[in-house]
Amino acid sequence: MIVSALATAVGVNLGLTVLLVSAYSLLRRRPPFVSVYAPRRPYAPLESWLAAAWRRSEDDIHAAAGLDGVVFVRIFVFSIRLFAVVAVVGVGVLMPINFMGDQLRLIDFTDLPSKSVDVLSISNVQDGLWLHFSAVYIITGVACYLLYYEYRYISDKRLEYFMTSKPLPQYFTVLVRAIPITDGGSVSDAVDKFFKEYHSSTYLSHTVVHQTGKLRRLLNETEIMWRKLKNLKYVPHRPSTDNPPKKFLGLFGRNNPGKYQKRLEDLEENVRMEQSDATRRREIPAAFVSFKSRYASANAIYIRQSDNPTEWQTEHAPDPHDVYWPSFSTSFMERWISKFVVFVASVLLIIVFLLVVGFIQGLTYMDQLEAWLPFLRNILEIAIVSQLVTGYLPSVILHFLSSYVPSIMKLFSTMQGFVSVNGIERSACNKMLRFTIWTVFFANVLTGSVLNQLNIFLDPKEIPERLAVVVPAQASFFIAYVVTSWTSITSELTQTSALLYHLWGSCAKCCKREDSEAPSMHYHSEIPRILLFGLLGLTYSIVAPLILPFVLTYFCLGYFIFRNQLCNVYAPKYDTGGRFWPIVHNATIFSLVLMHLISIGIFGVKEFPFGSSLLVPLPILTLLFHAYCGNRFYPIFEAYSTESLINKDIQEQSKPEMAEFFSSLETAYCDPALKPIQRSLNSDERTAPLLSSV
Amino acid sequence: MIVSALATAVGVNLGLTVLLVSAYSLLRRRPPFVSVYAPRRPYAPLESWLAAAWRRSEDDIHAAAGLDGVVFVRIFVFSIRLFAVVAVVGVGVLMPINFMGDQLRLIDFTDLPSKSVDVLSISNVQDGLWLHFSAVYIITGVACYLLYYEYRYISDKRLEYFMTSKPLPQYFTVLVRAIPITDGGSVSDAVDKFFKEYHSSTYLSHTVVHQTGKLRRLLNETEIMWRKLKNLKYVPHRPSTDNPPKKFLGLFGRNNPGKYQKRLEDLEENVRMEQSDATRRREIPAAFVSFKSRYASANAIYIRQSDNPTEWQTEHAPDPHDVYWPSFSTSFMERWISKFVVFVASVLLIIVFLLVVGFIQGLTYMDQLEAWLPFLRNILEIAIVSQLVTGYLPSVILHFLSSYVPSIMKLFSTMQGFVSVNGIERSACNKMLRFTIWTVFFANVLTGSVLNQLNIFLDPKEIPERLAVVVPAQASFFIAYVVTSWTSITSELTQTSALLYHLWGSCAKCCKREDSEAPSMHYHSEIPRILLFGLLGLTYSIVAPLILPFVLTYFCLGYFIFRNQLCNVYAPKYDTGGRFWPIVHNATIFSLVLMHLISIGIFGVKEFPFGSSLLVPLPILTLLFHAYCGNRFYPIFEAYSTESLINKDIQEQSKPEMAEFFSSLETAYCDPALKPIQRSLNSDERTAPLLSSV
Repeated sequence: MIVSALATAVGVNLGLTVLLVSAYSLLRRRPPFVSVYAPRRPYAPLESWLAAAWRRSEDDIHAAAGLDGVVFVRIFVFSIRLFAVVAVVGVGVLMPINFMGDQLRLIDFTDLPSKSVDVLSISNVQDGLWLHFSAVYIITGVACYLLYYEYRYISDKRLEYFMTSKPLPQYFTVLVRAIPITDGGSVSDAVDKFFKEYHSSTYLSHTVVHQTGKLRRLLNETEIMWRKLKNLKYVPHRPSTDNPPKKFLGLFGRNNPGKYQKRLEDLEENVRMEQSDATRRREIPAAFVSFKSRYASANAIYIRQSDNPTEWQTEHAPDPHDVYWPSFSTSFMERWISKFVVFVASVLLIIVFLLVVGFIQGLTYMDQLEAWLPFLRNILEIAIVSQLVTGYLPSVILHFLSSYVPSIMKLFSTMQGFVSVNGIERSACNKMLRFTIWTVFFANVLTGSVLNQLNIFLDPKEIPERLAVVVPAQASFFIAYVVTSWTSITSELTQTSALLYHLWGSCAKCCKREDSEAPSMHYHSEIPRILLFGLLGLTYSIVAPLILPFVLTYFCLGYFIFRNQLCNVYAPKYDTGGRFWPIVHNATIFSLVLMHLISIGIFGVKEFPFGSSLLVPLPILTLLFHAYCGNRFYPIFEAYSTESLINKDIQEQSKPEMAEFFSSLETAYCDPALKPIQRSLNSDERTAPLLSSV
Repeated sequence: MIVSALATAVGVNLGLTVLLVSAYSLLRRRPPFVSVYAPRRPYAPLESWLAAAWRRSEDDIHAAAGLDGVVFVRIFVFSIRLFAVVAVVGVGVLMPINFMGDQLRLIDFTDLPSKSVDVLSISNVQDGLWLHFSAVYIITGVACYLLYYEYRYISDKRLEYFMTSKPLPQYFTVLVRAIPITDGGSVSDAVDKFFKEYHSSTYLSHTVVHQTGKLRRLLNETEIMWRKLKNLKYVPHRPSTDNPPKKFLGLFGRNNPGKYQKRLEDLEENVRMEQSDATRRREIPAAFVSFKSRYASANAIYIRQSDNPTEWQTEHAPDPHDVYWPSFSTSFMERWISKFVVFVASVLLIIVFLLVVGFIQGLTYMDQLEAWLPFLRNILEIAIVSQLVTGYLPSVILHFLSSYVPSIMKLFSTMQGFVSVNGIERSACNKMLRFTIWTVFFANVLTGSVLNQLNIFLDPKEIPERLAVVVPAQASFFIAYVVTSWTSITSELTQTSALLYHLWGSCAKCCKREDSEAPSMHYHSEIPRILLFGLLGLTYSIVAPLILPFVLTYFCLGYFIFRNQLCNVYAPKYDTGGRFWPIVHNATIFSLVLMHLISIGIFGVKEFPFGSSLLVPLPILTLLFHAYCGNRFYPIFEAYSTESLINKDIQEQSKPEMAEFFSSLETAYCDPALKPIQRSLNSDERTAPLLSSV
């Protein structure tokens, strides 16, 4: 890519970014759009959103989006701090040295726009790499310091969050699975007998889980029917009853409210019958068992209960609203098999995607494209088209395709049988991260015959040298990729798809979205995307420091945009207490080690073996640092300590409201599908959906 | 190797075995040897040892050698059962088919002795491999059934052992490390404060660990001095005091008892001063904390204690007699570094050994040996010498060299900082297993340029085919190896080295061994050796079934010999409650999967792709079976369950002897180096060594 192509890409994206931000600033206060741009507030705030986002404190974020929201914002804070330092080193020191190099023989300032951007990269220098070498050490040192600082900061926040939390059912409750049943006895009796015997002084109550698959299907039907009915009633320009309204887009035919009302009542009758039936018969050998203190429930989780380790398996209970009930219906064998299926499916997805990326990657090479599509030669020879195609088009296609993957990954995680939504999303986050690194980073780096190149991973000694050859070659592609991403992160602000949906809804008048329902933040798709830019920034910091200002801009945009969105748009669906941070930490360590390997390879290729050897301890030290952090902080994200649990228990012991809490605990884990239903009579009064957690 | 060479090897080893057994049967009742052959009994039992070994029940073994002894014998029981079935299949079905094959064109019975033993192996057949294919499935099925049966049997034994055990300090005690100390406070105060705060109802007492390295050195000196003095007094033919005795082998010079007595008293004075000093000052931030019940101590182990995971780290306390005190002196950093050093050292040891084995392996090829050592050609051309050299010598050298490795591995494990002897030996057992598999199996299979061949592991798809080529080629070497091992396992019975030491001691008269001190069983060297024969038997069961009767003979010999030795010779030093079995299980699974890979490769090479493909699910099923066993049984070997702990606690609650036990618990974990010492005055009355656990 030549400098003018890059300038075109920057220009286009800067323009789009400014356009989107302006559109948002204009539209967000218009009444029809408030439900899209501030669904969490009934009004449009008056002050500038940028100023508000800047002034908002971390406590505000915590109050609005929970600790997970805070952690999400801390990813940007961490990245901005890190890349501010890295950009100073890279742009201030390394880039001038690269530019003064003589390898590409371009040391004149005339006609800069038509030069390749490679003149600013390490490809242009051959000797005197000591500063590059020092930069690797400095960047790693700064990154590790910041990682340690953030991990400690978020650990402290998590402990503080626990100590100041009000009594929550999940801390007092244990999910018990694989309950063995003796002939004739019920699950409920077995649980009662077992816990009364072995936890006599601390056992409080239990709720057995029931098979409710059929019931949930019925409830879904009821819900859909109720919404139809409600929309029918709400449509403002209803024609008089004689002429039935025309079908709109074939969605609604015989719009007879009376008929719907009757059908709804029938469905509700079915639901009620099924509910009483389920309570009577189909117990699943799983139960939520509650204890009198947090420490007692921790005891039941961390000490194996039964002599037979496959029975009475205990684990942390999720938040009652966060339980993913359908998972309970799957048997152990089904979960085992679906884990295997999911693994195979994930690998297949990556391979299919790699093939697609292989094609896209070809677009950055004009001559290859012309060879493939000769009839386009005339068009492609126009300068602006050529620059758009090489500098911009591949990234757009990649962004577009990637946007469909998170929901597939979440589906995969759902199939694995997690019992909580946060468990599903954390697992999907890890899957997305691997997917992103493979399909975006490695697939683009190992250009051409992607699958053939995979064998570089089979010869570990060769990896650094091979990476040193292939990584710098793709610098311009990734610089363009980062620039394109400005638009994609700004479109988060304008909520393009939600806006279109809303507009279509208002046009159609008949399938109005629930206005009060704020969407939830998709951490599992956003976090891997942000981490990818951290990976790109770090791996290219030495090779092509030109990428750094663009990466830094990306993080600054993200910081403001998401601080705004977390408070105005997204409502937290669950609170993991910051358990997404270890994923961020691990990904950053991976990026650092990859940077070290690339640097070792490059110094080897540039005949600077001394620097190459002196860098070898760095990945080892980084991994030792990682192991230390794993010991020092990770357990805090897995479980609370005796110290915290007992202090918290003592602190609340004498509070009068605890009696009430304990009595509410007994019914906290009731399957919402088994709760009484009454849609047909008072459906108009209620607006929140009944089955938000189904 | 030709049949007559094999016959020679079998003849020689059978002769040696019979000779050794006869020697043992004759010598074991002679009074001078009773201390070598039955140190655990003061008398030589009258009945035949073979009959006694046969008649002895498992309870006798349990009483004499603990559950570890039972597990050790069960390895033989399991192997005999497995290889009885495998031998029937191999020798009864596969061997005749192999012999009738036409690949080596030797289908006549004339002059059999000069034929290669390969005519009995799979090399001799090309078509009709369906029976071989079925044999792989049958053998795997039988092996998995027996593995499951044994794992369940030993798990039940372990639970029974726990439920019937008398109160033992280790169940009530937790080892706490990384105790943080506030300025001015002592470790003891910190422990007291912490456990009184967070375990107020169950905390009993604690013992802080002290720095006793210097003290232990002094005590060792005292011990050596005391032994010298004791031996001097015991020497029967003492010359009168005027002529000092001549130096014997330069070991003892001025044998003046009075002088020794004085020196001993000085040392003891030093020890006493050091003891009071150590108690006063050098505390290590580690303590043994005892609780009022087993369940309470489990609570303290499995729930993290402190908000900072690097402080107040808890783990199972070992048996007081099994504590390896020197480990406490090493800091966390030292342990971390030594782990790394040990890893590098283990790898280096394997590589050095591989080079040695590479040379030895050359000996099985006569022509290669003649090329290396041309001056030996005349000698080597004598038939019997040639057969001895190819059939016997390499195995002897290998056996000899291997005998030094276990102590090196134990030293390595000691450096890693385990706090119990059983921890050290279990870790050494794993190291030895890896070492044995690499240096004996893989090194011999990948003949010639061993290190160059390692790259077969870098191309996973090629592994089965490569193994299919190299494994059968080494069949004769391993048959000879198994035959040689008869002698080595029988020499366990005659205790050759202990006997020589004893004889030398009686000759020298001056360094008499403590007669009453029975040696302990070296599980970490014996178990890997036995498992190697299981590996050889399984991997060659399809390829060269001729090995099977020899392997079976080995296990039968071992069964009788070790049942005898465990009751008469070895005294258990610790009891892990059967925790060696998971190592055996894992190694057998490894052997099975290796057999599958080899079979897949062989069917591929023999152009039987259908069989090859149909075998692919077998390793996967085996690994699934392994995963199931890991879930079903392994946790039982790691920790006891709430069910067991509480039942056991309740069972003992009301027993009157518990008060006495609890009071003894307070001093149970006192460092033996800090116990009062009084050797100089009453040294003659005591025979057991003072510092058995140092």
